[in-house]
Parts: sequence; structure tokens; C-alpha cells
Amino acid sequence: MKNLDAKNFTVPGYKTWGIHCGIKKTDKKDLAIIASDREAAVAGVFTQNKVKAASIVLGMAKSKSGKGQVIVVNSGCANACTGKQGLADAKETAEIAAQELGVKPDMVYVASTGVIGELLPMQKVRTGIATAGGLLAPAGWSQAAEAIMTTDLFVKTVAVQEQIDGKTITMAGIAKGSGMIHPGMATMLCFIVTDAAVAAPVLKKMLQSATERSFNAITVDGDMSTNDMVLVMANGAAENKKPAPGSKDMKKLQACLDAVTKSLALQVVKDGEGATKLVQITVQGAKNPAEAKRAATAVATSSLVKTALFGEDANWGRIMAVLGSCGVDMEETRTDITFGKAKIVERGVGLGKAADKEATASLKQREVHILIDLRKGKGEATVWTCDLSYEYVKINAAYRS
Amino acid sequence: MKNLDAKNFTVPGYKTWGIHCGIKKTDKKDLAIIASDREAAVAGVFTQNKVKAASIVLGMAKSKSGKGQVIVVNSGCANACTGKQGLADAKETAEIAAQELGVKPDMVYVASTGVIGELLPMQKVRTGIATAGGLLAPAGWSQAAEAIMTTDLFVKTVAVQEQIDGKTITMAGIAKGSGMIHPGMATMLCFIVTDAAVAAPVLKKMLQSATERSFNAITVDGDMSTNDMVLVMANGAAENKKPAPGSKDMKKLQACLDAVTKSLALQVVKDGEGATKLVQITVQGAKNPAEAKRAATAVATSSLVKTALFGEDANWGRIMAVLGSCGVDMEETRTDITFGKAKIVERGVGLGKAADKEATASLKQREVHILIDLRKGKGEATVWTCDLSYEYVKINAAYRS
Repeated sequence: MKNLDAKNFTVPGYKTWGIHCGIKKTDKKDLAIIASDREAAVAGVFTQNKVKAASIVLGMAKSKSGKGQVIVVNSGCANACTGKQGLADAKETAEIAAQELGVKPDMVYVASTGVIGELLPMQKVRTGIATAGGLLAPAGWSQAAEAIMTTDLFVKTVAVQEQIDGKTITMAGIAKGSGMIHPGMATMLCFIVTDAAVAAPVLKKMLQSATERSFNAITVDGDMSTNDMVLVMANGAAENKKPAPGSKDMKKLQACLDAVTKSLALQVVKDGEGATKLVQITVQGAKNPAEAKRAATAVATSSLVKTALFGEDANWGRIMAVLGSCGVDMEETRTDITFGKAKIVERGVGLGKAADKEATASLKQREVHILIDLRKGKGEATVWTCDLSYEYVKINAAYRS
Repeated sequence: MKNLDAKNFTVPGYKTWGIHCGIKKTDKKDLAIIASDREAAVAGVFTQNKVKAASIVLGMAKSKSGKGQVIVVNSGCANACTGKQGLADAKETAEIAAQELGVKPDMVYVASTGVIGELLPMQKVRTGIATAGGLLAPAGWSQAAEAIMTTDLFVKTVAVQEQIDGKTITMAGIAKGSGMIHPGMATMLCFIVTDAAVAAPVLKKMLQSATERSFNAITVDGDMSTNDMVLVMANGAAENKKPAPGSKDMKKLQACLDAVTKSLALQVVKDGEGATKLVQITVQGAKNPAEAKRAATAVATSSLVKTALFGEDANWGRIMAVLGSCGVDMEETRTDITFGKAKIVERGVGLGKAADKEATASLKQREVHILIDLRKGKGEATVWTCDLSYEYVKINAAYRS
């Protein structure tokens, strides 16, 4: 697998662009279109929230066909909690794009992100689709990635290449965070395209597997969005033979998808609202992998742990308190905690000032690694999060204004 | 029931005091003693965290006897995650106090709060107990309440009087918050005393009932402490006949305990770390009371909801997102949300700008009421929380330094 320049790449058979059409109150981009030149296999994962945006209701229904060709994404308005009008607007958005691009409405997916409870300004959406549709270009990915941002500070893109069945295939993705990030299927917006040929049911399984170790392993603030969606399109322009389940080609393709989703997931955490640090939390020695993930997620979600990380304070007692209350099998007197390379707790007891000093030094880095060993079994899991800063409060105290 | 002046009261048969003995790095008070002049019935609720401070391990064992006479409390050091030495130190603390005050060590409870992972400075504790023991006074409650504070900004005291069996009985309590506040038995330190005579098993049931609607219904940051403890002593100095379960006197006594615990619980939330608002969240129409409490707690714990409250932004979409993801039976199209007196969401859809304006106005108050109706059943619960401010981050980024 080869990494491409994430700022300048193309994927055969796809065009994309992003523009400002006035959905956002600022002059920032707010509408993107991703289009394949032919029908593609499509797989999606969607928020598990019972409160689902119109785009999610629509996308879940459409993705059952395993087919698609166009994705229209708007930022600045979630079109969630908008009732029948909201659903009608989402359908109309798909119809407008279908007409503009000469495809069937069923082939068009819509995705929205932004404030909940407001209706889409449909006249602006209509104009925006016409404008963006006229500008579609093979290298438009940075434009599209910019147009799906909300409180994100940087665009999130990734592209890789691999040899499958003797053909060079490309896989690329864009994503946006950066609040309401928490495990539970997809946890943001992410769109991945490839020119590889893959059967839709196979693509779906591959996506579920990749999601579990990427988007479902990151948390910014413990809140689950109403609009989360990850869509993958595979249009077959590379003309490879569709890989058989379990084949070597299949594994290579899975590795590409794993790399793309993990890269985007970590970009989302790095750009978590107000984040100053990327924090990797690994729990090993849990009774089973599920308990390991539960413990790691609990630590990653604790406001007390996250504020201590912002303060570069090796306050391991807060981690012990979370481990003891998160419902996993643990014993205080078996638990070890390591910050970076410094073991700071052994069998439940702090290792003193020198260890504390070394651990504190490791917290001064931009990337922080915390390792917890419960000594209860073989379960292991890794979760990524960020710290909790003044800036997070500032961003979220004023989000709608 | 009559409220007494919470700053100046006495409870027959009890003396108390608080002093500074050097456990805290500052010159603030850090050790309190509460002593009854005779053996009292004792009941306690303790943290459900699997990681328990030495004082909790000791207290849980001692409270099985249903008896006690003295409580020694230190702030500045949690004596948690301190292994065998920590447990030995807690026992020694009880022994020192027993000797100083001429009671049996079994009659002495210890409680600690502060940084996890550090050992108690036993020489200072010894001196402190001698000093405080010599100063014990009937009206020392404000001194004691001050000595158990950590990041608290004000002392938390309450006192009531009632007629039981023709006698005037007094009940009073002190508490400390203000971080790691979350439901799960007791959620902070709280000590309640009364001169009423009550059988220990009855006292225990009364306390459990009162706790459920007070300390177990407040959350500041979703983290559960290793040191939470609520202790009640009833020394019988009022010489009333012990009330029989179900009797009118019993109900009056329960009402006193409910009032004392609720007052202290709300004082804890008002003084939540960085809090600028007291927020009451009521969920009604849930499938059952447990689901109502789960939903209310989820809303009360959401960082996104709490930062919006700090920003006085009626961002009800975040509440909908929490309701949909917290695992309770709900339907978007049945859910109503009211801020203060302003209904802002009806059957899942926002009610527009005028409602939004009125709801926003209600958020400018120091006390905010949010009412959620799920229209699914008859379950109802109320939870209290505070907002999430810059100050919370500041306090917790620098707690150990």
C-alpha cells in the first residue's frame, strides 16, 4: 500500500467540488458533491441514535440497494428534528442533484451536519447544487472536504494506492468532526471512494470491520450525533476482478480501508473541539476485548481525566476512579498504569515522585499514550481521544450564535 | 418541621470542630472531628466504586455494627490507592482519636477527601486530632464544614427541628462537593447527626430512601469518587421513644432526613466546580421511573448540553441527541421539551423563533428548569446538575498543583 499526497490526488471515475451557497451564516463553504461517472457499489454505517436526521433515514433506506452514484453533503444545518418538512427537503435535495447530474434520484445520497432543529434553506440548496455540479473536478477533494466542515479547524483527507488483481486501485476519503464524537457506529461524516470493483455485500462487511477499529474507537465528548454517516462507494473503474471473500486481494483491500478509516478517525480526534493533544488509551489484561474497550472508552470520556491531560498533570488517581466505576471486572491491587514509557502505578499503588516526574514529562508531548493493564485476562482495546480545554467550552457555549 | 439558622445551631449531645494541621499545602482547614457524648446508632452509604479509599473499606466494615460515636475527617489527601500502608494509616487515625477522646477504636469512623495516591502525613494527623479534640464545641459546625472542603467555594450546612413523641429533636448535616459528583450511592462526603433516638436498621433504611432522591440524583461531572460516604448518627439525647416503622413519627423523621439530604445535595450542585447555574432536569412520561432517571442523568451529564447552558444557548437539539442515544424507550415524534415556562419542542419539532427567544430568556436565570416529556408512560424523575464552564476546566487542569 502506498500513501498518496493527501492534498493532491484523484480517484479514477470520480469528480467532486465544494462551494458556499449561504447555508452557513459566514462566507465559509457549505455544500459538496461527490459524483461517480458510473453506478457504484455502496455501503454505509449510520448513527445508532434513535433521533435520526432526515438524511440518515433516507440513507439507511437507500443503502439497502447496495448501489449509488452521487453524494450531496451540506454543512451549517443538520436537518434533524425537522419532522415531515425535513424529510421532504432531504428527498428534494436528492431530486435536484439527480436532475442536475442526470442520474436517478435513488442513486443520490444526502448528508447533513450542523445545528439541529432548523430547516434547510431549499432555495440556497438548489442554487448550490447547480453551482457545485458545474464545477465538479477530479482533483476537487480539498474543496469538498472544506465544505463539509463545521467547527473543524483543518480539512481531513487521505488517499492510498494498492495493487489488486494486477491493477492499480486508489482509495480516498474525506471526513469532518469535531463535536458529538463518540463510539456507536459511525461518529461523524465520512465519505470514502475507490475505483476498485467490489461486491456490495462484501463492501459492507469490510466497512463494518474497519469502522469498529477506527470511528468506533474515538471519542471527543461522549455525545452521539443524530447525523453520523460513513459511506463508501466502489465504482469498479479500475476493472479488477471483484475479490473473493478471504482472498489475498480482499485482505489488501481491507488493509486499504482500515488505513483510510484509521487515518481519518485520528484526524478527527486531533481536531477535536479545543483539543491540544491526541491521547491514545490502551487497556490490556481485561477479561475480554469488550471489557477492554468499555474501560478504555470510560477513561477517554471522563471530564476529570481529560482536564488533567489538558493541564499536563499525571493525575492517575482519576484514572483509577474511572476504572473502578465503569463496570468492568477489575481489582485495585492488580492494576498497572503507564504514561508514555513511565510506569506510574503498579498493582494499584503509585510509584512515587521520580515516576510521577517522568510521567508528567510524557504529558508535555502533543501525542500522549496511556497504557492500563488490568491483569484479569487477555482482552485488549485501544481508543483515541483528546483533552478537554477552555476552548472546548468556548466553542460549545457559543455554537449556535 | 422548622429550619434553623444554618450558620448557628447546636445539636444536643454533639460537639465538633475543624482546624488546619498541615495536610493541605495551603493554610486552609483540613481536619474535622464530630463527636457524640454517648454511643449512637449509625448508618452509612458508601461509594460503589470498586476502587475504594482506605476510609471506605474501614467504614463499610464498622457500620455493620450499626454503632458509632466519633467521626474524624481530613481533606487534602484521599488516602486512596495507597495499599496496605493506607489502610494501616486509616486504622491508626481511628486509634489516635479513640485514645484522645476516650472511646473504643471501633466507635470511630474516618473519612478522607483530596488527591488520590498520596499517603496521609500521620504526624500531622496525630497533632491535628489532639488540637481539634481539645477545641470541640457544640456550635462548631461551620468550622467542621470548612475543614472538609476541597475545591468547594462555600460551606454546606443545614439544620432542622421537629416534634417527635412530644420531644423537640434536631437534625443537622454538613457536606462537601464539588468534583467527581455522580449518582452511585453517596456522591461526596456528608455527615448528619440527630439527637433523636432511632433503631440502627430503621436509620439505615431511612438513609437509603433519602439518598436516592438527593445525593443519587445530582451530577456535576459524571465521575464517581473513590471516597464517597454519607454517615448518619442518631444518639437519642432527645429521649424520644424510637419511632416504629410506618408510624407518623417515623414519617416526620424521614421528612427531616429528606430535607437535610436534599438541601445538602443542592448546595453541592450549586457549588459544582465552576458552576454558574443550578439546573433541574425533570423527565416525565418515561416507560418507568428507572428510564426517567436514566434519561435525566444522561442529559445532565452531557458536556454538549452543559456547555450550551453555560453559554445560555437554548440548543435543544443536543438534548434530543442525548435522549435518542441514552438507551431509553423514546420516539422523536413524541418528545416535548420545555425550558422554564417556554415549550420549545413539541413532538420532536422546534416551535420557532418566539419560543426560542422565551426559552433563551429562562436560561439567563441562576436556576434553570428543563422539563422533558417522552409520552411513553408514567415514569418520572428529577436530577440536578450545573453547567460546564471555563472555570471547571481551569480548576481540574491544575488540581494537584
